Amino acid sequence: MSLYPMSGNFVGIILEAIKALDPYRDRLRIETDDISTLMVGPPDVLFAAMRDLFVSAAASGEHCVLSAAISRGCPGEPDDAICGVGLSSSRSEPLAERVEAAIAAVRDTTETGQPTAAQFSLYVMGTGTHMDEIYGCIDFLKRSGTFDRSKNFCTKLRGDAGAIFATIHEAFHRFGDPEGHVTLDITVSANSPSKA
Amino acid sequence: MSLYPMSGNFVGIILEAIKALDPYRDRLRIETDDISTLMVGPPDVLFAAMRDLFVSAAASGEHCVLSAAISRGCPGEPDDAICGVGLSSSRSEPLAERVEAAIAAVRDTTETGQPTAAQFSLYVMGTGTHMDEIYGCIDFLKRSGTFDRSKNFCTKLRGDAGAIFATIHEAFHRFGDPEGHVTLDITVSANSPSKA
Repeated sequence: MSLYPMSGNFVGIILEAIKALDPYRDRLRIETDDISTLMVGPPDVLFAAMRDLFVSAAASGEHCVLSAAISRGCPGEPDDAICGVGLSSSRSEPLAERVEAAIAAVRDTTETGQPTAAQFSLYVMGTGTHMDEIYGCIDFLKRSGTFDRSKNFCTKLRGDAGAIFATIHEAFHRFGDPEGHVTLDITVSANSPSKA
Repeated sequence: MSLYPMSGNFVGIILEAIKALDPYRDRLRIETDDISTLMVGPPDVLFAAMRDLFVSAAASGEHCVLSAAISRGCPGEPDDAICGVGLSSSRSEPLAERVEAAIAAVRDTTETGQPTAAQFSLYVMGTGTHMDEIYGCIDFLKRSGTFDRSKNFCTKLRGDAGAIFATIHEAFHRFGDPEGHVTLDITVSANSPSKA
C-alpha cells in the first residue's frame, strides 16, 4: 500500500495520517520501505485500516491517492497466522447468493463524509472458471450503489469512502475460490482537481 | 497509468511531463479521466512512453511515482488492432531460453541517468502452470542487474530508469502463455526522501 498526497507537505500529511492506523496495529504486521507499506492481517481489519488512513489523509484537503495491491492465497507465500482463519465456508455459496450478500454489506456501511473515486481490478488465478467469478463480481459492483462505470481492465467506483472500501472489501473476500489465489489492484482518490 | 508528483505544483509537473508522450501518440490510443490514463498499444511503445513520461516528471526533482496496471490477453476485452500482431512465436521457446533473452535485452538498454526504485507483481491467469512462469520470471529478475530484493507478493528493483522499464517490459512480454491473460501491477519511484 502506498499513499500519495500531491502536496509539498506530503511527508507531514503522511505522518499525520498514519496515526489512523494505531487502533489496528495489534492485529496487523506492518513493514514500510521507500516504495510501500506491507500490511498483513485479516481482510476486515486491513480494509478498515486502509479506509481510515485514506480518510485521514484526504481530510487535509489536498489531492490524495491510495494505491494498493491486495493478495490472498498466494501459493508461493502462505498467508500468515495473523490473517486468522481462512475465509468461511459461506464462500462456497452459489455465486448469486454471494452477490446479494455483498450488496447488503455495502448498503449497511457507515458513512465517513469523504467523497471518493476509485478504480480496481480483480485477478482470480489458477482456475479455469476465473472469468465466471469476475463476471459475478461485476454484477455485484453494478448493483453496489458505488458503481461509476466499466473501464478497460478495471471498474470505476464513486461514493463515500466508507462505501467505496466496503465495496472493494466485498469484491476481495466473496469472489474467487475461498482457498484460491486472488489479488486486487486498487486506486482510491480524493480532492482531484480534474473533472470526473 | 497514473503519475503522482508529491508537490504543490503537481498539475504543472504532469502537464510538462506528458509532452514526453508526443513522439508516441500516433501509435497509442490515450484516454484520461480523474483517476488514470488509459494507453493502448504495442508493448514496446507502451513501455518506452511510460519510461519517458516518468523520467520527465522525475527531472523536476520532486518525489514522483508512476503507478500502472498493464494487461494483455484479457478474455473479456480483446486487445485492439493498434496493439499490433500478437506476441511472436518465439514466446513458445523453453523458459530457460526466454530468461537468457530477457537478461540480454535489459543489459543492452540505453541509460537515462535517472536513479529509480520500483516494485511490481506479475499475474498469469487461467492456466494451471502459472507458478512455473512466475518462478521463471523471478529467475530472470534476480539476474537482471536491477534486482533489489523479493518482497511479499512482489519484486523490488533498483537502477537506472531505462533498465528498470526494460526489466518490467521483459517480464511482461516474455513470460506467461503468448495468448494468455497476463497482467502487471507496477510502482516506479524517484526522489523519495525515505531511506531505501
